[in-house]
Amino acid sequence: MCVPGCQDVVARRLSRRGLFKGVAGTLAGAAVFTAFPPPRAARAATNGFSRVVDLTHTLMEDFPTYFGVPGLEMERTAAFDENGFNMYKWHLVEHTGTHLDAPIHFAKDASTADEIAIDQLVVPLAVVDVKEKAAADPDYLVSVEDLKAYEAGVGPLPQGGCVAMNSGWAEKVGGEEFRNADGDGMMHFPGFSKDAALYMMEQGVVGMAVDTLSLDHGASKTFDTHYSWLPSGRWGLECVAALDEVPASGATLVVGAPKIKGATGGPSRIMALV
Amino acid sequence: MCVPGCQDVVARRLSRRGLFKGVAGTLAGAAVFTAFPPPRAARAATNGFSRVVDLTHTLMEDFPTYFGVPGLEMERTAAFDENGFNMYKWHLVEHTGTHLDAPIHFAKDASTADEIAIDQLVVPLAVVDVKEKAAADPDYLVSVEDLKAYEAGVGPLPQGGCVAMNSGWAEKVGGEEFRNADGDGMMHFPGFSKDAALYMMEQGVVGMAVDTLSLDHGASKTFDTHYSWLPSGRWGLECVAALDEVPASGATLVVGAPKIKGATGGPSRIMALV
Repeated sequence: MCVPGCQDVVARRLSRRGLFKGVAGTLAGAAVFTAFPPPRAARAATNGFSRVVDLTHTLMEDFPTYFGVPGLEMERTAAFDENGFNMYKWHLVEHTGTHLDAPIHFAKDASTADEIAIDQLVVPLAVVDVKEKAAADPDYLVSVEDLKAYEAGVGPLPQGGCVAMNSGWAEKVGGEEFRNADGDGMMHFPGFSKDAALYMMEQGVVGMAVDTLSLDHGASKTFDTHYSWLPSGRWGLECVAALDEVPASGATLVVGAPKIKGATGGPSRIMALV
Repeated sequence: MCVPGCQDVVARRLSRRGLFKGVAGTLAGAAVFTAFPPPRAARAATNGFSRVVDLTHTLMEDFPTYFGVPGLEMERTAAFDENGFNMYKWHLVEHTGTHLDAPIHFAKDASTADEIAIDQLVVPLAVVDVKEKAAADPDYLVSVEDLKAYEAGVGPLPQGGCVAMNSGWAEKVGGEEFRNADGDGMMHFPGFSKDAALYMMEQGVVGMAVDTLSLDHGASKTFDTHYSWLPSGRWGLECVAALDEVPASGATLVVGAPKIKGATGGPSRIMALV
């Protein structure tokens, strides 16, 4: 039931996936397994909010993807004039658009998307602004120093919460600059460093969000941040939108993650309650 | 890229969809177009909550569907041992599992899922309990009298909010009783009456939720409730879970709807903030 072109797309994607081969052998053994779940954050008795910010890009068939080929095809299965109603079938690669990385995405054995507890999906949000650094260096890696500067200037990283990188990349989503691939196909966009990931784990953070296509920066060949973070039972969000519209601290992140048995992640409706 | 059996499944579904042919001609013209959006509810300056209730069933390939054929197929496209990471491609009929009906689902021209404003997806929730009546009559239709009894006993229907039918059907989801089809294939489960839909529209309600497979009851051949409600710009939720765990009033519903361009609905992560 593929639409025209679908099999080609998959064939090309499978070929590109060869990039990943061997990574598991060299890195998975070195993955950091921190006891999880971390101590539950002392949740305020009542969380309050007065507005909702949509942190989700609109997904469409030509939305940019990590692999550079379409991640979504919409197959119409009913049309109003003919059937009295409208309906589509989606052919959708899980890691497309604003989406969740479940722990199992980069682990041999960890939680799937449906197994993440609901109270880990409504959590405090910290936004770390590295826009100037990323503008100067598209390969920028959020560092432990960036996180300590946040702690000194804003407040503690949220135990039981999510830390988001605001690199300014969300506004590039409609153009080639979002993937920012060079002549060799190497992408250049910012991400979290492995050391930053380990530091966030020490602080009991459970979620990592980026406004780019990957938790690792685009030039990574070893996916150190993915392999450090996800196998510990933590989740990630990629292609998050509109982080400029939420405060550096104080918002509550709502992750409308797919609850599909066995899913390794998937397009999610992400909101901030402010 | 269909998994084995996929094309058969679609062929059978297409055949079943013949059921709907002609409905548009007889009913769409009679659809009630109420001005939308209704006056915005006077939202409290701050909404508070202290716990999150997951109102979402886990979706899997054998989750019951309206058409009686699988609505989801999971195609593995990467496996950890071979590729260093795990990933699937979903082949997914939009109206499967706990899911949104966008206005366009039963209208020639109305909002698609991505066009619903974010502040219409975080709204007050009213839960109308008709479990006893549905247990006595699986074809039960929520009536205007049921809604007036709610107003008299609990409080007003939430202007700008969502009204959910709790018929007790969610607990049947694992068995044949959820579709409850008779020997002729006619399903028997409760839903909202058209008159109840019209009454809710007069009160400025924007969302209608059911714990069954359809806003209309299972025996409907004319989909009067769908055709009255959705073309007015309102949305629906079907297969909602765990309504016993939220109060009759006072909760805030969060609809983690898919933000996919042109979608007529889709699996959604539904939560209640209580």
